[in-house]
Amino acid sequence: MTVAILSIGTELTRGEIVNTNAAWLAATLTGAGFEVASIEEVPDDIARIVETLRRLGALHRFVVCTGGLGPTTDDLTAAAAAQAVGVALARDDSSLLAIKRRVEARGGAMNRAQEKQADLPSGAEVLPNGDGTAPGFALGIGAAVAYFLPGVPREMKRMFDEQVLARIRPAATSTTQQIRLRTYGLGESVLGLKLDGVEEAFPGVVLGYRAHMPEVDVKVVAHGSTQSAARDLASRAAAEVRQRLGDAIYGDGDDDFPEVVGRAVRARGYRLALAESCTGGLITHLLTSYPASDYLIGAAVTYANSAKTRLLGVSEDTLRGHGAVSGEVAADMAEGARRLCEVDIALAVTGIAGPTGGTAEKPVGLVYWAVSHPGGTVVRDRVFPGDRREIQIRAAYAAMDLLRRVAMGHGTAA
Amino acid sequence: MTVAILSIGTELTRGEIVNTNAAWLAATLTGAGFEVASIEEVPDDIARIVETLRRLGALHRFVVCTGGLGPTTDDLTAAAAAQAVGVALARDDSSLLAIKRRVEARGGAMNRAQEKQADLPSGAEVLPNGDGTAPGFALGIGAAVAYFLPGVPREMKRMFDEQVLARIRPAATSTTQQIRLRTYGLGESVLGLKLDGVEEAFPGVVLGYRAHMPEVDVKVVAHGSTQSAARDLASRAAAEVRQRLGDAIYGDGDDDFPEVVGRAVRARGYRLALAESCTGGLITHLLTSYPASDYLIGAAVTYANSAKTRLLGVSEDTLRGHGAVSGEVAADMAEGARRLCEVDIALAVTGIAGPTGGTAEKPVGLVYWAVSHPGGTVVRDRVFPGDRREIQIRAAYAAMDLLRRVAMGHGTAA
Repeated sequence: MTVAILSIGTELTRGEIVNTNAAWLAATLTGAGFEVASIEEVPDDIARIVETLRRLGALHRFVVCTGGLGPTTDDLTAAAAAQAVGVALARDDSSLLAIKRRVEARGGAMNRAQEKQADLPSGAEVLPNGDGTAPGFALGIGAAVAYFLPGVPREMKRMFDEQVLARIRPAATSTTQQIRLRTYGLGESVLGLKLDGVEEAFPGVVLGYRAHMPEVDVKVVAHGSTQSAARDLASRAAAEVRQRLGDAIYGDGDDDFPEVVGRAVRARGYRLALAESCTGGLITHLLTSYPASDYLIGAAVTYANSAKTRLLGVSEDTLRGHGAVSGEVAADMAEGARRLCEVDIALAVTGIAGPTGGTAEKPVGLVYWAVSHPGGTVVRDRVFPGDRREIQIRAAYAAMDLLRRVAMGHGTAA
Repeated sequence: MTVAILSIGTELTRGEIVNTNAAWLAATLTGAGFEVASIEEVPDDIARIVETLRRLGALHRFVVCTGGLGPTTDDLTAAAAAQAVGVALARDDSSLLAIKRRVEARGGAMNRAQEKQADLPSGAEVLPNGDGTAPGFALGIGAAVAYFLPGVPREMKRMFDEQVLARIRPAATSTTQQIRLRTYGLGESVLGLKLDGVEEAFPGVVLGYRAHMPEVDVKVVAHGSTQSAARDLASRAAAEVRQRLGDAIYGDGDDDFPEVVGRAVRARGYRLALAESCTGGLITHLLTSYPASDYLIGAAVTYANSAKTRLLGVSEDTLRGHGAVSGEVAADMAEGARRLCEVDIALAVTGIAGPTGGTAEKPVGLVYWAVSHPGGTVVRDRVFPGDRREIQIRAAYAAMDLLRRVAMGHGTAA
């Protein structure tokens, strides 16, 4: 019993937008125990939509469709769905009223284009849209039930979670359960070595790895005779994986590394300052993507040597003697930021992100980072591979990881 | 005559990655004058790949396939392609040699898994891979020629550009030409008003708009009787659009706003400092995504009031009298950063990104930004809609746009 996803819109087949809706639906359906057998994208072309709906309806149990429900003339999905099953469009009064209320609440007046969004295939079940004007609907097509949702990601996700998933979940047959653990700091091959024998110790478990620079997700996929047996097996195997990987695992599911780092600093009761050179504000930006004003006091991005001296009090002697890209300067930057902002802990990074500026002795990718905290100052260095963007990201993560470990009371040896 | 794109890989149908390859291929094919009629994603399942290849081969002129050419046991694309046309796999000696050389150059030794990548459908035309071990190939399937490329984006893109596009381009039949102009600062409805009448003045031209927060692309799509007529019509209509929108157009094609802003500062010969509060380093990060050390001296991200005072010299009286989120503090921050870093021009931003911290008088989304330059200090403010991330992005773009205009000698009126 399989599920197909159909994304409708010429903006997709012309490559103007990336199909993140399909990836989100596929991940959500997979997580809920369904097998997604096919994802298709078609343009706003009624004949192609009809043909595709009929073909997918004959092959799958459910079809989840997004896009083409809006008010403009190129929104053809409802008409195509009606044609696919040989019914007419009929105006749905409750949807019409909901559209009218929403338009008027925005201070507008209803027009014919907006009214058209209430024209649904005769016999379809309406799926109300709490966030926008276009309602969705459910319709039997061939052997399948097809669910039609708007293409606006926020509206689509909420309607899928609250209305579609609630309807289809009882039909999930997969006896496979997956737990995703998020790691930072170990490469795929090292993770593989550390987890050697786990699959043998837990028959029915397969481990998977997915690197998305600079992190690696470890997926524990368990197959059982029932859903609950699979869930139990997955959770026992995941416990073993957690034990073996220790604090290389920073979270699970949807945890985000910068958020976890901020949480560790906050949990320790530390106030934080940052001093960035080659990472150009990336660390500060990542941490402040989440509310941070309760622990983050300030940051200095000191690109030029003069800024390192004037903002952070790094001495000109140190800069001359060791160079701006050195462990000494990283330590001075961290201590300067800590003093300047009068905080408990400060993180500093200096390096060469490229593409130019490297030498034989100090190549592109060489980065020093330092954490100054009540117990002293820790300095680390590494030559990171990749282009400018990759070097900045790798350096930002390495530096945040040191901050996380120090805040947690680990890894403070110099 | 249409083209289909087929992306192969269970990581796609499980939603573990977003299909950026298909979007890139669709945009490139559209730009080259082809009509992409369908994009499909299937898992690494040989029966599904064979069925899909046969169906697409019967319907389209070209099929571009990516993924499943690697060395592991779940890489099944070559076997599926062979099965789809009823031929056997045959080892290709030149590919085998190329793989061996590449593996040995990395210091490794050839193993059987890597050798398997040289097994291609009998009669296929080899497409060498200059960046990786897996070769691609071309194979007639039904009425179509199908091109098989690796899933690694860098390898795929180069092979498509250099080998596939060169082969298929003469078959492009579209007499449609598109020019994309990138704008910032005007909403879709204002752009529409300013461009009223352009379609009438240039018969065969259709204007399109694509908003991707906080920018809007204007697409000039011209249909002509020949490709060169379409090209000529598109370029004349684009000139009219440029004239009407003026400096709301910041670039075309693949121009990126932060890069354009950096270019404007550099072109003016200015040295720049930044002072960010609610944008949390986002502006500095965006500008330093490109080499910036020749004009960017430093930045202060002053989250706490104490940091505004200590790093930028904002007076405690001003903070008390007007509040941290005020035009006065934005101006003081810009002037402080300019003085501190001894630079020509400084940009400062202060505001409330939320989700908390708003009041009736100063709601979430209220942002002040200021540019201090040799001609004086310009302050702007706005209440931006959206969540934390959106407010940060909108504020960063608004502030960068003021910087761009001042650097270009426009919009400096206070």
